[in-house]
Formats: sequence, C-alpha cells, structure tokens
Amino acid sequence: QSNVTVYGIIDTFVGFGKAGDAKFSGVANGVLNGPRIGFKGEEDLGNGLKAKFTLEQGFSSDDGEPNSSKQFHRQAWVGLEGGFGFVGLGRQYAPGYHAYRNAAIAAGALDPFAILAGAKSLQIDAGSDSRWDNSINYQSKSFGGFSAQVIYGFGSTEADTQAKNPNRNNDDRVSLGLNYANGPLNLDYIYVDAGNTAFGDDHKEHYLGAAYDFGGFKLVGSYQIARQDADDSDVKVYQIGGIIPVGNGNIHVAYGARNEDAQDSDSRSFGLAYTHNLSKRTIAYVGLNRTTNDDAVALGALAKANGESSNAVGLGIRHAF
Amino acid sequence: QSNVTVYGIIDTFVGFGKAGDAKFSGVANGVLNGPRIGFKGEEDLGNGLKAKFTLEQGFSSDDGEPNSSKQFHRQAWVGLEGGFGFVGLGRQYAPGYHAYRNAAIAAGALDPFAILAGAKSLQIDAGSDSRWDNSINYQSKSFGGFSAQVIYGFGSTEADTQAKNPNRNNDDRVSLGLNYANGPLNLDYIYVDAGNTAFGDDHKEHYLGAAYDFGGFKLVGSYQIARQDADDSDVKVYQIGGIIPVGNGNIHVAYGARNEDAQDSDSRSFGLAYTHNLSKRTIAYVGLNRTTNDDAVALGALAKANGESSNAVGLGIRHAF
Amino acid sequence: QSNVTVYGIIDTFVGFGKAGDAKFSGVANGVLNGPRIGFKGEEDLGNGLKAKFTLEQGFSSDDGEPNSSKQFHRQAWVGLEGGFGFVGLGRQYAPGYHAYRNAAIAAGALDPFAILAGAKSLQIDAGSDSRWDNSINYQSKSFGGFSAQVIYGFGSTEADTQAKNPNRNNDDRVSLGLNYANGPLNLDYIYVDAGNTAFGDDHKEHYLGAAYDFGGFKLVGSYQIARQDADDSDVKVYQIGGIIPVGNGNIHVAYGARNEDAQDSDSRSFGLAYTHNLSKRTIAYVGLNRTTNDDAVALGALAKANGESSNAVGLGIRHAF
Repeated sequence: QSNVTVYGIIDTFVGFGKAGDAKFSGVANGVLNGPRIGFKGEEDLGNGLKAKFTLEQGFSSDDGEPNSSKQFHRQAWVGLEGGFGFVGLGRQYAPGYHAYRNAAIAAGALDPFAILAGAKSLQIDAGSDSRWDNSINYQSKSFGGFSAQVIYGFGSTEADTQAKNPNRNNDDRVSLGLNYANGPLNLDYIYVDAGNTAFGDDHKEHYLGAAYDFGGFKLVGSYQIARQDADDSDVKVYQIGGIIPVGNGNIHVAYGARNEDAQDSDSRSFGLAYTHNLSKRTIAYVGLNRTTNDDAVALGALAKANGESSNAVGLGIRHAF
Repeated sequence: QSNVTVYGIIDTFVGFGKAGDAKFSGVANGVLNGPRIGFKGEEDLGNGLKAKFTLEQGFSSDDGEPNSSKQFHRQAWVGLEGGFGFVGLGRQYAPGYHAYRNAAIAAGALDPFAILAGAKSLQIDAGSDSRWDNSINYQSKSFGGFSAQVIYGFGSTEADTQAKNPNRNNDDRVSLGLNYANGPLNLDYIYVDAGNTAFGDDHKEHYLGAAYDFGGFKLVGSYQIARQDADDSDVKVYQIGGIIPVGNGNIHVAYGARNEDAQDSDSRSFGLAYTHNLSKRTIAYVGLNRTTNDDAVALGALAKANGESSNAVGLGIRHAF
Repeated sequence: QSNVTVYGIIDTFVGFGKAGDAKFSGVANGVLNGPRIGFKGEEDLGNGLKAKFTLEQGFSSDDGEPNSSKQFHRQAWVGLEGGFGFVGLGRQYAPGYHAYRNAAIAAGALDPFAILAGAKSLQIDAGSDSRWDNSINYQSKSFGGFSAQVIYGFGSTEADTQAKNPNRNNDDRVSLGLNYANGPLNLDYIYVDAGNTAFGDDHKEHYLGAAYDFGGFKLVGSYQIARQDADDSDVKVYQIGGIIPVGNGNIHVAYGARNEDAQDSDSRSFGLAYTHNLSKRTIAYVGLNRTTNDDAVALGALAKANGESSNAVGLGIRHAF
C-alpha cells in the first residue's frame, strides 16, 4: 500500500454550442485536463538510484467511457532515475506532450492549440499522438535550466506482446525535446520524425514554443510545422495567448491558426476562459471557443461538417485527487 | 493517497437451477449486491463547501468480466456539496436506483423486484437503467426527513466526449425522486420521463415504494407503472416483502408480479433468502427464486425460452472492502 | 482504504531477435513475471476464520494493453480461510499455475517451460489456461509439508453472469494438485481433466515437477503428458534447469523439449538469464531464448512460420509494488 499512490483528475462541464445550424447542449469533459486515474510509485535503490513507475488510464468523466481499449491509455512505464537522468521503458510521453506548457487554456477541449494541433496528422500536441507505445525514453537532468529528452518508439506492428511479429516496420518514430526553464522564462524546441502517420510515411515536424511570466501577465505562444517531403506538403500551426491573474483566479485568452498547403484547409480558433481556484486541487471554470474553417476542413469543439464554424461554451469543475 | 479511498463489494455464489427442462449448475454473482470496485474522495473547500467524486466500475466476480465496456460503468461523477445540497456532473444514479430501499432481498439476482422491474424497458430499478450518462444531478438536504432529487440526462448521441454530435436528440431523460425517511418509515415517490427507451419514445414511469420497520419485522413494498401514450400501452410491477431478524442474521421473503397490456406477457416471482452476518462487512447467504411466465415472456434468474418458469437456488458470500 | 492493498508488478524489456529470416527489435514485457495490478485484502472474522479476496488484472507493460477484455483477467475471487483450509469462489488459479515453482526462468517470456507448455492445448502452465472462471476451489492446510488443492471450473457457456444459459456443457474442468514442500525440496503432482480444449473433448493431463536447493545451486525440472483417448494422441513436455546464486544475483539456465504424436510437431527450447537484484522489489535482467521447431509447428518467443527457429535476447527491469 505504501508503495503505490492512487491519483487522478476529473474535469466535467455543462456545455452549450452551435456548429453550422445545429445546436448543442450536454455534459462533456476535459476543458482544463483530460480526466485520468493512475497508480504511481518510486523506490529508493541506494547510491542515488531510484526505480519509478506510472500506470495511468484516461476516461470520459461525463459518461465513464475509457479513452481507448487500453488498460492504461495515458502512461504505462517503469524506469530508473539516477545521476545520469532517467531511462524509461513502455508507453510514455514524447516531448510533444509537454507543449501544453506554452498554451493558455491548459491545452484542453476549448484551447486553440489543442483543437488545431490535436487534429488530424500533427504529432506534437498534448494528446494521444504524444503517448508512444513500446518506447525507450531518456530524460536528462537539468543543467542551469537546460534539459533534453530523447524517445524512440517502436511501431505497434513489430513489438506487440510476446513479439510475435518480427518484421521491423516503417512506423517507428523518434523525437527530441530541448527545454530551457529558468525564472520567468520557459522555452521548448521539439522535433519528431515518424513513419506511417495520417500525414504520410516521412512525417517530420518541428515545434518552437515559449512562455514568459511578466508577473501580472504570462505570455505564451508556439509555432510548429509538419512537412512531408514526398509531395512537399506542409501543415503549420501557430498560437499565442496570455494568462492574467485576477483575484483568486485567472483569465486565459488564446488565438491560433492552422494553415495547410492543401486547398481550402485552413482553420482559425479563439478561446477565452476564467478559472476560479476553489482550492489547490479544485477549480471552477467557464470558457468559450470559436473555431472557423475553410470549406474542406471541420475542426473545433463541435464542428461536424466541412466548412462549418463551431461555437462552444462550457461551465465546469476540475478536481484533482 | 490520502485523497482517495479504494472500496468495493464482491458477491459470488454457487447456484443450481432449472428453467423449463434445462438444468443449471455453476458459479454466478450478485445476490445481495452487484460486485464493484471504486475510488472516491472528498475535499473540504471551506465555508461549508465540499468537492466530492466517485469513480466506480461493476464487474462479474465469478469470471472477472466487466459489466460493460465502460471504464466506470456504475458511477463517474464530480460535484459540489454545500448548504444548498449537492450538484453533480457525470454518470450518476437517477432516483430509480434507490428503489432497492423498498425491496426485501437487496434488489439482487434472486429478488422479485430486480427480476420484474430490471427487465426490458422499465426505467426505475436498481440497475443500469438508473445510471445516467452526461447528467446534471441535484440532491437536496433533508428537511425534517424529507428530501428531493432531480436529474437531467443528456442522450448519449448528443453529448459524447468532445461533443462532436451537436444535435439535440429525443433520448434525453429527466427524473424526480421524493423521499421521506423518519424513524421506522421510508417512503419514496419517483417519476421518470424518458425518450427512446425500449418501451417507446414517450416513456413515462411512476413508482411508489415504502418500508416500515416494526422492530422484529420490516415490511417493504412498491408499485410502479410505465405508460406509453402513443399506443396506450402499460407495464405494471408490484412487489411486497419482509425482512425478519433471526439471531445473527435475517430472513428475507418477497413476492411480486409484472403485468403488461401486451397479450400473454405477465410474470410472477417469489424469492426467499437467509443472510448470516459473519461481520459487518461479510455476509454468508442462501437464497432461492421461482419466477413463472406467460407464453410471450421469459423473465427470471434462468429462463431462456418464452413461457418457461425459472427456479434457482444460490449459496454464497458477500464481502465489502 | 485500510481494507484493501493495491499491488502489482511491471516487467518490461528491450528485445532483439531473429525468427527465420526476419529480424526483430522492440520493447516487450514479461520475462520474469506477467505485468499485473491488483487489489486484495482480508478480514478477521474471529474464531480463526478469515474472509479474503483478490482482484487482479494483467496487462502489457510495453503498451498498456490489457491481457484480455476482462476487468480482472488474472484473478477475481472471494473466499473463507479457517482451520479447514481455504474455500474460494470466482476466477482462480488452478494447480497448474503453480508449476512455475519448478521452472528456472520464472516461467516468463524466455523460459522453455512457458514456451513449450504454454503453447496450444496444454492446460498445466503458469498462464491463462490455469486461471479458471466460475470455479470452486479448495486449498488444504499444510500437514508436515504436504498440502492439496482441488478446483472445479464450470464452463463459461453455462455459468455466465445471471446464469442465463442453463445447459450443463462439456467444457467443465477439474484439477487436483498435490504439493510437498519441506526444507530444500519441493514436489508437485498435478492432474487436469478438461472438456472442450483445443486438444479435444476428453483432455487428461498429468504433471510431475520438482525443485531441490543444494545451497549454491537449485535444480528444477518437470515432466507432463496430455492425452486424448479418442484418437490416442499424446503431447509430452519435459524441462530441466538450474538457478545459481552469483554475488547479488542469479544465473538461470533451462532446457526443454515438447514431443507431439502428430507428425513433425516437436520443439526444443533453451533459455539462459542473469537476474540482478537492485532491491527485493526491483530486478534488472538480461536473458536469451532459442527455440527450434519441426516443420509443422512454430513455438518460441518470436517464431511465426512453421518450422522456423526463434532467437531472442531481452534486457529489462522488473519492479514489484
């Protein structure tokens, strides 16, 4: 019992919205954080060495559905930490996951970054695309605020349990993350090279993000570009935002745009939220998102048909345990 | 760790039975309670306000199967409790779930109420039909023994995660529960108005239940009626029972009947059980149920073919942790 | 909270291998133990009586996938323990599971016993075939080192939840295990009689295993035979191995063979591993397995096509919590 900590987050809201001509009302989840429940622990092995593990499942806190058929969809890893840094094996966060550090509305359901970068094909976002199966992960110590992460993920078709499919495939992927965090400044550069994504076989993606805390105002922003050499097709996403402390809470505002080389495939997204701290663990919030789409795409919290714009408002609670 | 409590119930029995000409023997579950495991907690926010959550999964304790593909099939909610009562969001118990308070054999696998009301189409029973996805729930404080619950459940087709299906549908549902609990008396009135159930699009259901503890004998009973205006078709279920303390245990007896307007669709069910308290948490039990069916229905613990009667005996153990 | 203990094992490795002409590299799991997470507890009922339960799920620690669609694939039982021994109900280990006591590499992914006996049709191995749904299990106390286990498993088609399929079927199974454990010696005899396995309708299997600890060297070995009377067809598996303490770790070596009456269906497997104890809970390991097959079979950690040989190396970590 003392070896494991049970923890998690629930984030559920009442939402209203309009996509094209269709109106929506209901209960949904995940404005500030994807709901999760996890089991984690660490053991001191002596000589500065530690064994650590995390097993974490994601689910919809509005209806109890799991995020996927996995037992532990978000994380499932074991590793060793020492003077050399950390080495882990299993299903782990690629550097792209940490891009939420440079987004204004916690990279959740109403955040422009989550909506624009989490959509089809991009690999650097704070969602499922940044949780890699069968991966080897290295995270360095911090040197004067600077740290690096490298991860290699074996494609699922070659490294299933019991390893019955022995052919090396083209769905392996590798990512490098460089972070500088010192005082008010956070800087991230992330690179991903992945095979067999929705975007093609030689998917290469770069991300540059930053956050600076001016005291009464925190400015965040990022730019990323995904490139497929074969047909010279690019997807670009940028977003900029701010977090403004107000009394016992914060105002969050963000704007972003997605630009695809493909015809009529651009989107723009705007998000605004107020989060009120009921305690360190519990936050009440209200937020909105408006996303508009060109004729060939349908991004947004609600949009279903290409070209539709999506308007959504949510009022909810996030509780961490 | 201190923020979350892991709890649950296991209820497994050896059963024997006969349905029509077929004989049965095996291990099954759920005579006194549906097996479950859950995670719950609460946080004091000050000023009389509390944040609370529950994540609870149901499973078959005879073979380890989950009750559904949900991560948390039984409950998944977060809410705030204060002087105003409780407001919760997520997958929650509708008032119908609490009808087990007026049933003699804990509304489990051998209980007439569970067999007759839990079957096709009725919405007020202590089972899955009373656990509502995407719901907003209000529970009042008790005023001199009187309390009320109101819940609104958004249909699953309109309020999935990420809310991608924005059309309001006809599968929304609403329920009101009024409870009076004072000394030996418990009284419940429950109303449900649901669209798109197996019983039709304008399913309206009323329930009246009561329990009275005479000291050496507790009398329980309920009557409910489900009505579909369109074709003026009704389903009625009533049941009556008693719980008699005997030494370190209780004798439970109950009889109920289900009457459908449809031709040859009535059923009758009788249950008898003895529960022996090995401790507060652990109960050994033996119980039986006999259910008979008209030619067009097949209710009961075992019956498979229409018109068959079902006879079942179970000997088991219920352990809460 | 105090009633339940959360526990588990993670075992993940980086593997390299070759099967036929195909090369493999990736991350997989389970060299020393199948990854698992569980919830268990016990309650003292007085008079020497205890209630006990275990709910345990298996999963792939390389990608977070569950071992099956079950909520608790490995174990799900409740039982009573007293002067009479233990009686349990639910999904439980048959005696065959404990055969890992007489295997050299913990009956994991690189162990000859696991590869040869865990494969198609055999019922006595430390894997899924030894976890029985809907079972009644009796485990005796130890008398001078001698103990016995008897288990009866009802076939899944007849004893599902709610027991809706009342016909007794031919997939029931029964097993007897006799164990003698005294000082350096461990002896196991196991018998299984199962209907409707991949090996036929009247599958009968015998197992004899032993381990002897000479101090600086532990010798293990086993022989088992599965027989189907109908067509007089046999499958035999034997394996022998040793565990040699070296400094803060152990060298494990094992060889085994499987002999089928069917034409060209024999296999041979060799395993070698070094386990290094970083602590009682955490073990680093390196291991290899080579399995060769006759033309009509494909056993091994990697082999996919009949007749291929399989060579695998793994370097990993096992952490218990």
